[in-house]
Amino acid sequence: MSLVQSTPYAELEVGQTARYSKRIDDREIQLFAELSGDRNPIHLDDDYAASTAFKGRIAHGMISGALISAAVACTIPGPGTVYLGQTMSFTQVVRPGDELTVELEILEKLPKSRVRIATRVFNQNREQVVDGVAEVLAPKRKREVELSALPAIRIG
Amino acid sequence: MSLVQSTPYAELEVGQTARYSKRIDDREIQLFAELSGDRNPIHLDDDYAASTAFKGRIAHGMISGALISAAVACTIPGPGTVYLGQTMSFTQVVRPGDELTVELEILEKLPKSRVRIATRVFNQNREQVVDGVAEVLAPKRKREVELSALPAIRIG
Repeated sequence: MSLVQSTPYAELEVGQTARYSKRIDDREIQLFAELSGDRNPIHLDDDYAASTAFKGRIAHGMISGALISAAVACTIPGPGTVYLGQTMSFTQVVRPGDELTVELEILEKLPKSRVRIATRVFNQNREQVVDGVAEVLAPKRKREVELSALPAIRIG
Repeated sequence: MSLVQSTPYAELEVGQTARYSKRIDDREIQLFAELSGDRNPIHLDDDYAASTAFKGRIAHGMISGALISAAVACTIPGPGTVYLGQTMSFTQVVRPGDELTVELEILEKLPKSRVRIATRVFNQNREQVVDGVAEVLAPKRKREVELSALPAIRIG
């Protein structure tokens, strides 16, 4: 069981931060390939990837988008947040085995519960891999939600 | 085996279009929840979701981002494309069972192989669920790539 709590619009403060980390391994790359249908060998085939300018496999860039979305939904503002928009600049490749950390920072509170949030993603060497901004509708009331259990997912 | 071919920068034309479709079922929602860690019950728990303003489960918005990324990587410009950035506005919720179609349109060719691409996502009722723009580095040469095989992924 895993409880997460939202921070409602009224309690959010400009400058407030939160972090969300996840390691990107072959498993995450395979899940993303299955979900999206993007089975390009640059992400999945060592021999092919070694022959490219990247000199080895790289993760799909949009995996960072998935982590940003989870960070917003599970930290601040958390459950009940409505996603309105996201910008992303991919500034560095992500390799299998990289530990990514999404750093959120409340940038601006707009009328009607809208909030702009900086969404910066770093690898384990503190190199920034994504820069961007989320725009969301923050929840009006505080709520505590139990994350759902997932069925086991087995690969191979 | 599945072959995909890239369209190099020199051959891309403003106004050129491509489409990429995928149905979003419980499986895709579970894969995204596992990948991202976002197990909010609004996506996974019918009873909880029925009690919210959405009156039922919705897909994670960023699943559309995954499809956009796959569309760019597998249609135009295709294999060898380097993802530089993406903007997204989420304009309508996606429900389990929705058939999403990403429609790409080459908007602008910039210097140094940069290309701006409209990335619009529609559901089966032709309601637009995402509006946005991708910026990419298109491949310099045409290449044909065989998509990699994935190990079987079993859920539950």
